[in-house]
Amino acid sequence: MNPQNGYDIEDISVGMSAETAKTISEADILLFTAVSTDTNAVHLDEEYGKTTPFGGRIAHGMLSASLISAVLGTRLPGPGVIYVGQTLRFKAPVRIGDTVHARVMVKEVIAERCRVVLDTVCTVGGKAVIEGEATVMTTSRAKREAGK
Amino acid sequence: MNPQNGYDIEDISVGMSAETAKTISEADILLFTAVSTDTNAVHLDEEYGKTTPFGGRIAHGMLSASLISAVLGTRLPGPGVIYVGQTLRFKAPVRIGDTVHARVMVKEVIAERCRVVLDTVCTVGGKAVIEGEATVMTTSRAKREAGK
Repeated sequence: MNPQNGYDIEDISVGMSAETAKTISEADILLFTAVSTDTNAVHLDEEYGKTTPFGGRIAHGMLSASLISAVLGTRLPGPGVIYVGQTLRFKAPVRIGDTVHARVMVKEVIAERCRVVLDTVCTVGGKAVIEGEATVMTTSRAKREAGK
Repeated sequence: MNPQNGYDIEDISVGMSAETAKTISEADILLFTAVSTDTNAVHLDEEYGKTTPFGGRIAHGMLSASLISAVLGTRLPGPGVIYVGQTLRFKAPVRIGDTVHARVMVKEVIAERCRVVLDTVCTVGGKAVIEGEATVMTTSRAKREAGK
């Protein structure tokens, strides 16, 4: 582990996983709207939402995706990690009151470049709402001890 | 255009583009932390940030990425659009006070499936901080008029 309690590249192996979960509230949608400036009516206007295939307001896709960033930045690899890339496939809507579980699982460790590739999935009630893959750069104990 | 003033698939052609921009404040980072639960110290702790290669606090990558969602959901294609997928390559950090420009440009129109593929880029001072590609599903005037 690094001094911030995140995993060094030397600590990470294929198959390791971590998860977080959050219940999405109306307040989350309002705050995310303010930060993102994404004022699309499908997120804010319940009457309009009812006229769409979703049948009501839905959360911003990037709001749920941000939970993936949270798992990577706070649990696995955790503090010290640098986000390199992310792919996202939005599979199903998330509604107010849904609890989103974001899970990451190590699928590849590229030790010489301190890179880790992880499968990332967000689920609601066991059903995938976002699937994708993250690439991150981690700290390295060997580099730290070598003063690099 | 659809009744919500978004583009139908019939209105969209390769090369069309749209942009939004936002200056990232400390408040944005605090609100995004609350929504995402991503409490990584590099976003919150200036003293820790100074010890990293970034030289200070940086915004969450997904915060800047959320501006791409805003352009897609409010400008091009705009209201009525459904987010299908997004790839993100994080190229450089965004700091408090930076103005992030998020730009999308149509690169492919798949009319029969109402799909549009767009290049997406976020820049600060003309330098790319996020590059990637979005796939969205749009409304269709033909389908609407056929009552589908």
